[in-house]
Amino acid sequence: MNFEIKDRDAAGRICRLKTKHGVVTTPNLMPVINPNKLLITPREMKKLFGTEVIITNSYIIKKNKELNEKALRKGLHKLLGFDGTIMTDSGTFQSYVYGDVDVDPQEIVEFQRDIGSDIGTILDVFGTPDQNKEEAEKGVKETLNRAKKSMKLKDDMILACTVQGSVYPDLRENSARCLSEIDADFFAIGGVVPLMENQRYLDLVRVIISSKKGLNPSKPVHLFGAGHPMIFPLAVALGCDFFDSSAYAKYANDERMIFSWGTEKLDDLIDLPCSCPVCSKYNISELKTLEKKERILEIAKHNLYISYAEIKRIRNAIYQGSLWELVERRASSNPFLLEALKFLKLKENKIWLEKFEPVSKKKALFYTGNHTIHRPIVYRVHKRLLERYKPSSKDIIVFPEGEKPYSSFYSKEIKKILDKNKTLTIIVDSSLGPVPIELDEMYPFAQSVFPYITDAETEEMITEMFDVFVQGKNVICWMGEETLKEIETVNVGKRELDVSRVAAVSDMQFGTRASEALLNGKIKIVKSKKTGKIRNIYCDGKHVLSMRASDGLFTLKIDGGRVLHNFFKYPKLRVVVNSDAVSFVKEGKSVFAKFVKDCDPDLRPFDECLIVDEQDNLLAVGRTLLNREEMLSFQNGVVVKTREHI
Amino acid sequence: MNFEIKDRDAAGRICRLKTKHGVVTTPNLMPVINPNKLLITPREMKKLFGTEVIITNSYIIKKNKELNEKALRKGLHKLLGFDGTIMTDSGTFQSYVYGDVDVDPQEIVEFQRDIGSDIGTILDVFGTPDQNKEEAEKGVKETLNRAKKSMKLKDDMILACTVQGSVYPDLRENSARCLSEIDADFFAIGGVVPLMENQRYLDLVRVIISSKKGLNPSKPVHLFGAGHPMIFPLAVALGCDFFDSSAYAKYANDERMIFSWGTEKLDDLIDLPCSCPVCSKYNISELKTLEKKERILEIAKHNLYISYAEIKRIRNAIYQGSLWELVERRASSNPFLLEALKFLKLKENKIWLEKFEPVSKKKALFYTGNHTIHRPIVYRVHKRLLERYKPSSKDIIVFPEGEKPYSSFYSKEIKKILDKNKTLTIIVDSSLGPVPIELDEMYPFAQSVFPYITDAETEEMITEMFDVFVQGKNVICWMGEETLKEIETVNVGKRELDVSRVAAVSDMQFGTRASEALLNGKIKIVKSKKTGKIRNIYCDGKHVLSMRASDGLFTLKIDGGRVLHNFFKYPKLRVVVNSDAVSFVKEGKSVFAKFVKDCDPDLRPFDECLIVDEQDNLLAVGRTLLNREEMLSFQNGVVVKTREHI
Repeated sequence: MNFEIKDRDAAGRICRLKTKHGVVTTPNLMPVINPNKLLITPREMKKLFGTEVIITNSYIIKKNKELNEKALRKGLHKLLGFDGTIMTDSGTFQSYVYGDVDVDPQEIVEFQRDIGSDIGTILDVFGTPDQNKEEAEKGVKETLNRAKKSMKLKDDMILACTVQGSVYPDLRENSARCLSEIDADFFAIGGVVPLMENQRYLDLVRVIISSKKGLNPSKPVHLFGAGHPMIFPLAVALGCDFFDSSAYAKYANDERMIFSWGTEKLDDLIDLPCSCPVCSKYNISELKTLEKKERILEIAKHNLYISYAEIKRIRNAIYQGSLWELVERRASSNPFLLEALKFLKLKENKIWLEKFEPVSKKKALFYTGNHTIHRPIVYRVHKRLLERYKPSSKDIIVFPEGEKPYSSFYSKEIKKILDKNKTLTIIVDSSLGPVPIELDEMYPFAQSVFPYITDAETEEMITEMFDVFVQGKNVICWMGEETLKEIETVNVGKRELDVSRVAAVSDMQFGTRASEALLNGKIKIVKSKKTGKIRNIYCDGKHVLSMRASDGLFTLKIDGGRVLHNFFKYPKLRVVVNSDAVSFVKEGKSVFAKFVKDCDPDLRPFDECLIVDEQDNLLAVGRTLLNREEMLSFQNGVVVKTREHI
Repeated sequence: MNFEIKDRDAAGRICRLKTKHGVVTTPNLMPVINPNKLLITPREMKKLFGTEVIITNSYIIKKNKELNEKALRKGLHKLLGFDGTIMTDSGTFQSYVYGDVDVDPQEIVEFQRDIGSDIGTILDVFGTPDQNKEEAEKGVKETLNRAKKSMKLKDDMILACTVQGSVYPDLRENSARCLSEIDADFFAIGGVVPLMENQRYLDLVRVIISSKKGLNPSKPVHLFGAGHPMIFPLAVALGCDFFDSSAYAKYANDERMIFSWGTEKLDDLIDLPCSCPVCSKYNISELKTLEKKERILEIAKHNLYISYAEIKRIRNAIYQGSLWELVERRASSNPFLLEALKFLKLKENKIWLEKFEPVSKKKALFYTGNHTIHRPIVYRVHKRLLERYKPSSKDIIVFPEGEKPYSSFYSKEIKKILDKNKTLTIIVDSSLGPVPIELDEMYPFAQSVFPYITDAETEEMITEMFDVFVQGKNVICWMGEETLKEIETVNVGKRELDVSRVAAVSDMQFGTRASEALLNGKIKIVKSKKTGKIRNIYCDGKHVLSMRASDGLFTLKIDGGRVLHNFFKYPKLRVVVNSDAVSFVKEGKSVFAKFVKDCDPDLRPFDECLIVDEQDNLLAVGRTLLNREEMLSFQNGVVVKTREHI
């Protein structure tokens, strides 16, 4: 199996999974194919929706004499008429619905292997939400037992091992950890259907997070039985890669139409609130008066159009770095989804999510309500502001929020202040918290859109952050000339805002005191002639940093890398590659997962980093795609893009 | 012109407008057709999107010799190849863009009339947001002047008169009032394009509300130049009926794709996040590599698919009573839309919106964030709770929120309490505020979905409401047996919860003390055998009320109507019809707009009402569709559905 990350946002990711029957892009959806009763053929799905992967039930095939024989003789792919990737389920869900199934756990894995399934599934023990902890633990143990035995039988089939543990976070995490230890190559999060059915999204989120915490991050994760697109964005943001949908057909049978905001009975509609080919082909009365079988088929198609559109929307959001915006938008369509989202405000969840959060995004951060301020990116910049930014004086001048960038909006005032007193710290009291004027072009301070009035919760959080930031300082609210008169004249030394900016951004990005090293010499700052923005920074004639116009963050040049490498002790900012990779990296090639030996635990996705050999010799500088835990787990794909080498 | 309301929600409505070329359903969208350069033909639009109405520019036609002649000779409909309704613009927008236009205000109206436009537009004076009040006022006056003169020239053409007044609410309201006074038959709200372009949605909302306040509510309202579907739900919720879109083509020319959540450049996408026929036909690389002209055409189609889908979504939401949910969902996609929505929290806006708010809806009220608690329906029920509900004792037992319906969830506890003390008031401290146990099945108390935790603002509002409700009372929190021991035994009289329920709902629905009249006799309550819920109420053998299972509100029977008619003085609950209608109503026919002479100002859409003649003789009981102001303005359509007659 080959599984690699291509892009990411929140704890979600776009990956490529190679199977025996091709490449599958995640996040993705597997429509459930009932081998007894094909509603839409897989072939047609591929044509209409670009379906890359489907799922069917090996238990049903095994139990039906005709299907069984045909599957063994011709293979699963011929049986279903699909040449793409096929996953099989094992009968676990049937055992949940009917109490038990008449099949041996090992036999069913062998059967899946023998009919040529690309991704088989163990026969796990379905843990229901109403189980007590003891029952749930028993199920987890038995599931692990079966997984161990099944792993020996799988051959070259990918085998999905299922995390169970009911609604107990510690059981879930433990189940996940044990399955990771036996080196399962694909994970399913099981037992969530009853949570979905009862809109217990808060419990669902708890289950996903605790499972993810225990799972090897380099393997695909399938949220088993989650087929309503309403849940897709949140589940992806928490690290799920696959969904399966029997909902498209089940809902269609009841004449219920799936939408990104929920479900509507056809009978409750007076117009088709949708632009999909089905809803564009018919008007509502035409659809309502179709022959019943035809109508169900058309609704099933509609349901799949909507589900796949949501998958594509999620991939775009990951690419643009707007997955949280999508998650929050979707949450506003359902009170329980909103409740689930609020659970992410807990500090332990922020800490977990922050590890996966990219340091910068293509799209601006959009305020969508009182959840926005709890996003991991905000948690991170607030933390870094307190840890890494050093105010230059005890006196802090505070401007109210103005237009962005603040340093242009308040340029006259800032000049007057600095003419009188070089040491004063100047900040803006913004909707995102205190923004030192030197950091006003840095993501996300400049790349964020807040309305003038936010909400009580956001304001409270921001006020709290502000208070911590100015603790022990003397706050002076800017009141124009009046304030100017009150400022004590201190003109010792000189303070250029440009240099302060380079220093402050360096510290925020590379760590406390990074600026001491990077700016230890004669500094030359080159600005863009067109925009007047800082572009390149030279120290003693050496090009150490470039500032990106898009996010106000630095690209580290190899000479800057040398400085930071000398200054910061191992493992800070390092990605360590083994000897096999050294010559490649020295040629400027990117770093592949399997060559990584170690990594600074503080590096985050899209951070600038130092690539070193096992003796900590600097080889190159680059940009990470993964955090430490991921780098050490993944076997495939580029994990650091090398930018400049020695 | 014939314009009638068919259904409604918030201050929005579904109407039918009859023009010379057919019937148009509102809300609706008019794609802008450039007569010089047809991108998609109107004929194709009709086929693809079911386009009922288009808009084109008469100024452009007039100024082009060839088009001018052809239009006059063959007529506008032949010129554009469209047999549906066509609206024409007058050149006002050109005057805004180019500073001036070379056309006489009356001449252009005559020209529109002569080429057979269904809906013409006066040449109004475009008021920009940066005008000072004096300039804006001048424009308003000149616009009114031209409107007056133009009205004389219009013949049987519908003539859109444009509300101006820049961003000054009093000017807008006055402009609207003056245009209503000259009996204009169609209104446009003009000068909003610069607000749309700069995402000044808060100002846009202010403009719409102040304009609507001055407008005759029985006429169609067109939000001129608003073509992005992101704004449609909110604008409709505030009473706009028509939009026009040049955006579909303008954005397509820049390769920008319109979505319900905003706009995306094709270049910024890695996948087509949409299910429309265009996005289902191509994958992203196919679309990106189409020949440019073809690509622009396909994006234009996509833009229209999306825009029309939003219109249909809005109509559905009105039908289901979930327009606020849609508005709030959309607001979460854009910080400035969210800001605009917050403006509706002002008490004066709540008071205005409450007049249009239906008393009941098909769908449950969904919590979507801290705006939900500010909806007009919540404002209304809180107001009525304080004014109309009379607690039966100084002691109030308070239960925490439980499952709905609360009276079932707490049935054992309630029985124990009432066994000991018949007089105690029992309420639930719910997410929607205090809910007396007798009202727990009434809309929206039962028909609402809130998560367990809401938000700081909602909790504050609810606490405030709670405090006002219990003011001067003795609050006893239910603590089980302990509380029971503390309750003083009062068993005088008897209190049956069913009777209390009938009384409390009557008072809430019909007004303070309505229950004294309706229950003044021997009461018999018939319940549904299936659900155990109250169905029919008899007083002294007469069937006075029926309770609807769906919303827990009463349907008024004719005998109940008699009682209320005797008890309440004129004009309470009355709709007065003139003598022409008396015989029809007496036969059970519904009341048409033109027969209404007067109406209780406290009646709201979907309220139960008494239909009386001009001497206040009771003719029938029915259910209103309009509020008083609307009843007295509308000329067409059913305004009261007669239910039972004398």
